[in-house]
Amino acid sequence: MNRPKILILGAGYGGLTTAVNLQKKIGSNVADITIVNKNSYHYESTWLHEASAGTLSPEKVRYDIQSVLNNKVNFVQAAVESIDATNKKVITDAGEMSYDYLVVGLGFEGETFGIEGLDKFAFGISDVNEARKLRDHINSQFAEWASQAPAEKDDTLLTIVVGGAGFTGIEFLGELANRIPELCKEYDAPQEKVRVVCVEAAPTVLPMFSRELVEYAVGYLTKKGIEFSIGTPVVQATPEGVKIKKGEEEFEFIKAGTVVWAAGVRGSRIVEESDIPSKRARVAVDKDLRVPGFPEVFIVGDCAFLMNEEAGRPYPTTAQIAMQQAITVAENLIALIEGKDTKEFVPALKGTVCSLGDSDAIGEVFGKEITGKSASFMKKVIDNRALYMVGGAGLVLKKGKFNVL
Amino acid sequence: MNRPKILILGAGYGGLTTAVNLQKKIGSNVADITIVNKNSYHYESTWLHEASAGTLSPEKVRYDIQSVLNNKVNFVQAAVESIDATNKKVITDAGEMSYDYLVVGLGFEGETFGIEGLDKFAFGISDVNEARKLRDHINSQFAEWASQAPAEKDDTLLTIVVGGAGFTGIEFLGELANRIPELCKEYDAPQEKVRVVCVEAAPTVLPMFSRELVEYAVGYLTKKGIEFSIGTPVVQATPEGVKIKKGEEEFEFIKAGTVVWAAGVRGSRIVEESDIPSKRARVAVDKDLRVPGFPEVFIVGDCAFLMNEEAGRPYPTTAQIAMQQAITVAENLIALIEGKDTKEFVPALKGTVCSLGDSDAIGEVFGKEITGKSASFMKKVIDNRALYMVGGAGLVLKKGKFNVL
Repeated sequence: MNRPKILILGAGYGGLTTAVNLQKKIGSNVADITIVNKNSYHYESTWLHEASAGTLSPEKVRYDIQSVLNNKVNFVQAAVESIDATNKKVITDAGEMSYDYLVVGLGFEGETFGIEGLDKFAFGISDVNEARKLRDHINSQFAEWASQAPAEKDDTLLTIVVGGAGFTGIEFLGELANRIPELCKEYDAPQEKVRVVCVEAAPTVLPMFSRELVEYAVGYLTKKGIEFSIGTPVVQATPEGVKIKKGEEEFEFIKAGTVVWAAGVRGSRIVEESDIPSKRARVAVDKDLRVPGFPEVFIVGDCAFLMNEEAGRPYPTTAQIAMQQAITVAENLIALIEGKDTKEFVPALKGTVCSLGDSDAIGEVFGKEITGKSASFMKKVIDNRALYMVGGAGLVLKKGKFNVL
Repeated sequence: MNRPKILILGAGYGGLTTAVNLQKKIGSNVADITIVNKNSYHYESTWLHEASAGTLSPEKVRYDIQSVLNNKVNFVQAAVESIDATNKKVITDAGEMSYDYLVVGLGFEGETFGIEGLDKFAFGISDVNEARKLRDHINSQFAEWASQAPAEKDDTLLTIVVGGAGFTGIEFLGELANRIPELCKEYDAPQEKVRVVCVEAAPTVLPMFSRELVEYAVGYLTKKGIEFSIGTPVVQATPEGVKIKKGEEEFEFIKAGTVVWAAGVRGSRIVEESDIPSKRARVAVDKDLRVPGFPEVFIVGDCAFLMNEEAGRPYPTTAQIAMQQAITVAENLIALIEGKDTKEFVPALKGTVCSLGDSDAIGEVFGKEITGKSASFMKKVIDNRALYMVGGAGLVLKKGKFNVL
């Protein structure tokens, strides 16, 4: 009768994988399990660059949360507003919820670092809503250009500035490189009128990869017509474009119909504003993924901060690690309910692949560097694996990527 | 050596059908035939309501002009700027062209009757450029709405006002009725938040059809959620919507994310500004479709004004009549070159079908009134027939409509 209440916040990679592993491994009637999520769907946040560029339908990057849950887990569609860990309560827009165990998987948010105008005039790639908006905006810019009289055409409508040469920025550029020729055909625009500029404040592109891989990626994208402006911070965005800093006192304004900001992510503001101690919205968790001082609270995914002691730096906030953490969290929840010891989270870093559109990629997999078609193939294996871990073969068949080679 | 020069302006239904019939019926080396068109493609202007609503790809409504021409006809991509019929010259943005025989098939333009703001804030459905712009704009309005926070959603983004309950207006509403549920699904919008309002100044809908057919059409669209405001002229358009006149001193402002103007067409301004006498950009032609006073100039399609003496009113400007005129024009051109008499244009009015989306329609065919699936089937037969008349079976296979019943 007095079953412990497990509350999972967020149905991203971390939260949903926790729920699915719990329902797989926990006995019937052992716990009341509820997962709360703002949308009725889970989306593959690592595929949003494709939906944003228009190379993949937004429908393909998401699926109904209910479709992967069985009757051991309740789903409540509600937006989490605040967490009161001291009193074991969560406030949502659908009311207050209490818990015995809490799993926080509230994901990431875009971070504009206070740069003027970015919040108003730049598009993000953080969720399905933003992806659709960005895709439709780019289409509209092409349509507007096409309908202008020949003598009055404003070619800067066809300029896209992408702020950020990290993972998301580069993957988005890779999709754009493939999408631009299609857009040109669909909207009768000559490709030489289109300009795609990547602006990065840091002196390097994709800092997580070796120089060879970075050179491969930049070479590939440059050949496709992408321009790079590296070591040049964006200092302002306006409705007309962005101002970038090229030197001590030297600035350049790039007029652009579309400005995309893909240069920063942070943890959830709800975590930051809660009574759980955090730094830049990330919580330094114990090795079993619980919060020091709140032994009934687990954090998974983007809001968890965990040191890789061997490497001397924190583990990256990837889908791979979030899903691995979720498996540990599910096991540790069951252990706690059964009065057993929790176990340490031990990540198994299989590698990272950064796509360059649909048919090329760079990556490091099991310690080996790969590029080209084999890297692109691996990327699709990874993407399909994420589906498989949550929804099994059925979900892979429905949403998987099979256009391999 | 001194072959007569035939110049055809415009590759719409009238101009392109003239060219295709000429190349079929004229001997080799009898004349130099040139067709001039602004775009490299012909588009089915009677299908634009589908491309505009997003129910048919813009690629499906157009095809390359070159693809239906053989080596008897030259194609020049250029925008016609003016016609100097007195001196048998045409000025284009690619230079001046002279002719011995001229065929003017410059089509229609939207007409806003000087209503304030319509030219700036309303979308038209007059060509492929406008269709793409309108489709993308509607998508963007849904995307914007979806990305707004629940408490801040502006539902009027999802309101579409369609000015005009004539043929184009009603056919566009029919497509919207089918497209809205898809848009709601794609953008996670509840359908009850969407509002589509048809505003018409005249007291009637579709004046060319019987009361029974009109009632069928309005009933069908009303059941699909379309609102009608009839006998209420639009008096102003603003970036926020339209002001309509509901009574002597009574006005209503409808806030709307999208305003479409489908209430008026006129002939080409180039014809109006030429030395060929015209009235509202239409030229009263002789029975053989030549211009009185300019016996070497033929007019086909929307710019031709021809009385139906039996009915006591001019023939409507339809694709059907434009293509029938073109056949007569081609034959008369050959007759003139051969020193023979021209013949009168005798239209064969087969009927008119107005689609209500993809699976319903109303129409009068061979004097019989039809509705429902059979009318919808007839509409597709008519659409495919237009392709067949220009490009034969091959073009029907490529661009035809086969989703019949």
